[in-house]
This record gives sequence, C-alpha cells and structure tokens, in this order.
Amino acid sequence: MDGIGPESSGLTEIDHVAIAVRDIDAAIAWYESALGARVVYRERVDHDGVEEALLEVAESFIQLLSPTTDSSPVARFLERRGEGIHHVGYRVGDCGAALERMRGAGAELIDERPRPGSRGTTVAFVHPRSAFGTLIELVQE
Amino acid sequence: MDGIGPESSGLTEIDHVAIAVRDIDAAIAWYESALGARVVYRERVDHDGVEEALLEVAESFIQLLSPTTDSSPVARFLERRGEGIHHVGYRVGDCGAALERMRGAGAELIDERPRPGSRGTTVAFVHPRSAFGTLIELVQE
Repeated sequence: MDGIGPESSGLTEIDHVAIAVRDIDAAIAWYESALGARVVYRERVDHDGVEEALLEVAESFIQLLSPTTDSSPVARFLERRGEGIHHVGYRVGDCGAALERMRGAGAELIDERPRPGSRGTTVAFVHPRSAFGTLIELVQE
Repeated sequence: MDGIGPESSGLTEIDHVAIAVRDIDAAIAWYESALGARVVYRERVDHDGVEEALLEVAESFIQLLSPTTDSSPVARFLERRGEGIHHVGYRVGDCGAALERMRGAGAELIDERPRPGSRGTTVAFVHPRSAFGTLIELVQE
C-alpha cells in the first residue's frame, strides 16, 4: 500500500448510519420516543440537497436525511426504494489515505478526492456497485 | 414508562450494520483489503437461515450475512432488493425494557419478546413498517 498504514486508512468507528426519511421532524420524534435517542446536530447541506439531523449513540450517530430538492440523490432514493437505510459512514483517521486504499482494492469512487462534508468533516463516497450493494462514506473528523 | 429508565431501555452503541451478500467469503476478502477490517467472529445461525461474519470496528461490528437456505428472510431480501444494507442492530442494556419502550411508542414488533441471537446475545427485531423503513434489531450482550 506504499506506506499507507492501517493506522491512517483503517476504520476507527462506525461514524453513522444514514436513514432516508420523508418527514425529518416526524422521524426525530419517533427516534426520541421509541429509542431514547437525542438530536445533537442539525444542518441543511445544500451541496447534497439534504437536511440532516444527527442523533447521538455513544461515539456514533444515527443520521436522518430528508431531501430539500426533488432532484437530490436522497429524493431519487426515496422515489425508487422508499424510506430506509441509505448509506453507512465509516470514520477514518485520514480520508485521503482510506480513499487510496479503496482505489487500490478496485473500488469505484464517487468522489475522486476528499471533499467537505457536514459538521466540518472531510468525506468521500464509494459507489455501491463496487461494494456489495452498500453506499459507503468515508468520514474524517 | 412505568419505571423503565433510559439507562436500561436506551441505546448504548450501534452494535452492528448488517449487510446481505451472496458470497460471504468474497465480501470478507473485500472488506479486509478495501477497509482494513478484521473478522473476529463467524457463526451459522440456523434459526435465521444465515451464515454471519462479524468484522470489528471499535466497539461495533460490520455484520456480513449470507443465506443458508432459499427460503430464509435474507435470501428473500437478496431476491427482492439485491445485495446491500439489511438492518441496523442497536445495543441496549436491557432488551426487554427497550422492546417495551418500542411497543409503547407504537412500533410493530417482529419478536414479541426477546430471544437468543448470535454470539450469545439476546435480541428482538422491530418491523421496518413502523420504523421509517428500517429493520431494527435490539441487541443485549
């Protein structure tokens, strides 16, 4: 791996499980009452056409996502598959190193290089086609 | 909530993200090379008609699932939706208390009471119909 060690490219945490929902406020209310989870962060991410809410679970998050435009990827996901789990975010020490490791393993990258994510993170997405059907996000805090 | 406190019914960790795959050995090899994850546990769970492999990520797991029979729920999932994220497991202190909290919030339970899961856990599943499209497993270690 040309000097890319597991300490930088490896997974340090399940950062979040992202769930696409139509009504984010109704979903937040349900997660609070049914699971006792608590919202610690909300953001409108115009780049991705979503509103997101993060609910804290130990060092990880449940990320509720709802679309802010009809053409956003999350809107298309809801149309095609309905509400449900949209992707998994894995926390890594170095997003660039983790992305290179993915590329080396033959993964099809959606983001060719790390880019800004929500709450000040650096992120990159990997296509589900090359990852056993799972949309994977690499997240560096 | 009749004395069911958040300390027992609340979430203490994302226990696992479960991913349905056709060829579990190929998926393990990919997760090892692309993400640097490591298998820490394998089990054939005849009750659920699956073979599972757990890959460690801090205090959580990536759970790879492949069907052992054509009629298992995971086989039907693969047929209907293809490979991908199957469910989320949330770790709780007390599975019975968490299930009662879910029931109180109007959730449709697949397991009316906690039952044995893999690796000696106690688990219960909640139907995606009542949980914004997400199949949820409550896991008590």
